[in-house]
Amino acid sequence: MNETGVPPSPRTRVRRIAENADYASSTVQNIVDAAYLCQIAFHDGENTHCIPTACWRDGEYLYVHGSNGGRLTRQLLSPRDVCVNITHLDGLVLARSAFNHSMNYRSVVIYGRFELVSDEAEKRRLMDVFMHKIAPGREHEARPGNAKEFAATSIMRIPLAEAAAKVRSGGVQDDEDDMAWPAWAGVLPMTVQALPPEVDAQNAVPTPAYVHEWGAQ
Amino acid sequence: MNETGVPPSPRTRVRRIAENADYASSTVQNIVDAAYLCQIAFHDGENTHCIPTACWRDGEYLYVHGSNGGRLTRQLLSPRDVCVNITHLDGLVLARSAFNHSMNYRSVVIYGRFELVSDEAEKRRLMDVFMHKIAPGREHEARPGNAKEFAATSIMRIPLAEAAAKVRSGGVQDDEDDMAWPAWAGVLPMTVQALPPEVDAQNAVPTPAYVHEWGAQ
Repeated sequence: MNETGVPPSPRTRVRRIAENADYASSTVQNIVDAAYLCQIAFHDGENTHCIPTACWRDGEYLYVHGSNGGRLTRQLLSPRDVCVNITHLDGLVLARSAFNHSMNYRSVVIYGRFELVSDEAEKRRLMDVFMHKIAPGREHEARPGNAKEFAATSIMRIPLAEAAAKVRSGGVQDDEDDMAWPAWAGVLPMTVQALPPEVDAQNAVPTPAYVHEWGAQ
Repeated sequence: MNETGVPPSPRTRVRRIAENADYASSTVQNIVDAAYLCQIAFHDGENTHCIPTACWRDGEYLYVHGSNGGRLTRQLLSPRDVCVNITHLDGLVLARSAFNHSMNYRSVVIYGRFELVSDEAEKRRLMDVFMHKIAPGREHEARPGNAKEFAATSIMRIPLAEAAAKVRSGGVQDDEDDMAWPAWAGVLPMTVQALPPEVDAQNAVPTPAYVHEWGAQ
């Protein structure tokens, strides 16, 4: 990753609508940090798969976790090159011509290989980072993983070194000839909205700050 | 697809948390219809890619479109087996134990091959279906694609025959031993929320119903 506008590799060079490409590490990190999920594509020698899974970032790596015996864990650690995508849809762009309709989005593609995190202390630290992303402060409240649970869980990381962002934002881009066409023109924006928290029927604990804040978003 | 609970193929049999699997065509269709974007994974013989693109459903097929010369179009029509994923995140499930944290989601995986739609009348009908999904009624308002624009656009479809849904919903599932642990338990739900429409500065057309309704959601 870099701030120079130069793709880190031939695989990450954006071909289609290349002016929407962004190779800056800060752009990549912001898009990753806005995601709870990513899609991982891998080829197992016979079939290609596209599997969604929870993810989080720490420094220059994207992290995922899985059950030791799970198919995704085994496949990611084969090891083999994979491709990870994260995409946020921000709006529908309604141009006067059908052809110029578009979408506003923020997307990241990451190429590379996952590697296992085996250090026990590092595994605990990383799961705390993940919990903090889910609900800041909760890493001090939830019942921590015990030795058996950590032993059953694989944490894997892929570097963000070979990554590219592609972003479209802003308004309608109609051709000059279409400007008089009588169709409404503009953007229908959207966002991910927090809904009121649903407390467990047997909860006996006062509402923590991150739950209050979730409802207030 | 079926309503019998039987996976349509070995590729679509859900392995991990198999009780969340759903092979019913109605479940698959509902999840597809809630999406504007899908992720397509394909292997080009050297690398595996994961590319987001707009999508829509008509009958028993998922449709995407692209520029004739685009890499995605060429790769999908090679032809080769691909995997498509659509995932909607519905909530963060905060259990009392870190290990039992989860997410609520609706996800579909589709295996198969894309094929080109070459019939001109069918291409026009399908783009109207897509436009109707984006904004109902707008297929009669936007300036229709001309011969040159349609000639530059490839519409491709993949059958939903080899598809599986995986869904988690509902509340926290803690182990009995953890029920007294003093951590808040519940779900932080989320949804995709329409934001107020952003009208183009040069728009001269009255606000159509689908724009009013977007803002009112």
